[in-house]
Amino acid sequence: MRENELIKHVRAQVTDPAETLGIGDDCCVWSPRGPTCLSTDTVVEGRHFRANDAADAIGGKAAGAALSDIAAMGARPVGAVVALSCPSRWDAPAIMDGILAVLKKYDCPLLGGDTTGGEELVITVTVWGEAVAGAHGTKRFVTRSGAQAGDLLVVTGPLGGSLASGRHLRPIPRFAEGQWLAACPYVHAMMDLSDGLAADAAKLATASGCGFLLLPDQVPIHDDVPELSDQTKAACCDGEDFELLVAVAPEQWPTMQLAWPFSQRLHTIGWLVDEIGAFMENRSGRIVPLPWTGFEHQ
Amino acid sequence: MRENELIKHVRAQVTDPAETLGIGDDCCVWSPRGPTCLSTDTVVEGRHFRANDAADAIGGKAAGAALSDIAAMGARPVGAVVALSCPSRWDAPAIMDGILAVLKKYDCPLLGGDTTGGEELVITVTVWGEAVAGAHGTKRFVTRSGAQAGDLLVVTGPLGGSLASGRHLRPIPRFAEGQWLAACPYVHAMMDLSDGLAADAAKLATASGCGFLLLPDQVPIHDDVPELSDQTKAACCDGEDFELLVAVAPEQWPTMQLAWPFSQRLHTIGWLVDEIGAFMENRSGRIVPLPWTGFEHQ
Repeated sequence: MRENELIKHVRAQVTDPAETLGIGDDCCVWSPRGPTCLSTDTVVEGRHFRANDAADAIGGKAAGAALSDIAAMGARPVGAVVALSCPSRWDAPAIMDGILAVLKKYDCPLLGGDTTGGEELVITVTVWGEAVAGAHGTKRFVTRSGAQAGDLLVVTGPLGGSLASGRHLRPIPRFAEGQWLAACPYVHAMMDLSDGLAADAAKLATASGCGFLLLPDQVPIHDDVPELSDQTKAACCDGEDFELLVAVAPEQWPTMQLAWPFSQRLHTIGWLVDEIGAFMENRSGRIVPLPWTGFEHQ
Repeated sequence: MRENELIKHVRAQVTDPAETLGIGDDCCVWSPRGPTCLSTDTVVEGRHFRANDAADAIGGKAAGAALSDIAAMGARPVGAVVALSCPSRWDAPAIMDGILAVLKKYDCPLLGGDTTGGEELVITVTVWGEAVAGAHGTKRFVTRSGAQAGDLLVVTGPLGGSLASGRHLRPIPRFAEGQWLAACPYVHAMMDLSDGLAADAAKLATASGCGFLLLPDQVPIHDDVPELSDQTKAACCDGEDFELLVAVAPEQWPTMQLAWPFSQRLHTIGWLVDEIGAFMENRSGRIVPLPWTGFEHQ
């Protein structure tokens, strides 16, 4: 399918929001209503999906993973653009349909893009968003860097096994949870878990000038993790869970746990600590260096 | 080079503007000062550059081509993010250095990105910008769709030969020219020339609900076009010139030409017409269909 036909295929499915210029010009144009957050996220054949995965599922993953970064700021999405480098063996309209379905699900208009050929399927989704006013009128983005030593590390759901199960193709951006958390002043830092808890907790701690201590037996293990495996390692290192990792003032934890309105419960999995580094408490209660550094995409 | 090291390499070279959160969090954050325009632009190995082109030049092209879309709105750049899918045979830091050098030249801060491996080098640069107040306080984005039948088609510089000469690796976003043109109310439509005049004039005309008539002998031919070739065809079809194509109210053309403050002069190359289609005046003065449709990236 030629570029022009693909653009027509997409254009027929999208409606521009009011006072917004969408697909078809040199740029899209919109009127931001305040501070804006933006993220760009790439998925590549053979690294983030397999050649035999369904085209629409791959598109959906690209969109969902990008949206997850907006959710991780506690924000809501405002718009997205897609850059698609697509070999002719891939079904470009199906990829775009998968992207559009996920963007639509989260009320994020597709406002532009660029399509080219290529030897390898590469999809870059760029999404931007705005802060949401919480119950008390608070309106902020939650960064990775606001955590303090002593804060609890909390995750919003079970981890591990997403690659083997195919769940990595269906990331769920935690918008409602992220916005709820952003409205809590005692939530000091937040990020989404894409590279695995061990690697991502290190990023949050480093950004905040802290170290962290993990309680491996507290890490919630996803049903996708096979029983006869090192389940804790899988939960800490597999990655692509897209749950939120949150640093919480410890004295507020009981309040927070009671107020939490979502069915999937929160889990405390460790602390931020003064000493720079990644540590865990082993089964004999000793503090030792964390043996895993998590997954880094090559 | 691993992702973390590349991020460090880039981070050391960038300074975040005031009240802006740059590289290192789930999203970058900035405070827009009004309506915002955004474009995403991809370059792919073997299509937009060759495997033996210099890494920093390729990065520079990716950044320059993306910035050109902001210039084509008459806007100034506010921020950029880069998604890099980079095989290990490519020098990722050199690519990023090339991107940073061009962004810096046009005062565009790099605020984020994503890097992955891949079998093929693919660079997606997303840039956003804001409208600039002109001499009379006008502040607008110039789209492709505002042209009217009877408007003159004007280009800001000579065309053709950019691929053979390597000039396509050094796009010059026409920011000063674009902003000057945006301040002229009689400039009805504008775009940058990336796919070749024949294809791009058709896009501008179609977006404006018009057709167009080209005067082939009026199309300025770049020195890069070889003498013993169909020079007019090269100027109309080669593409990647990144000059601006502008639709101008014809009665203002003499004024505009006189007021134009840039050394590279403007060229009138045709008109917008009521009849939908692409036409040219041939050497015997007859109106015939334009024989070229320009280059479309596969």
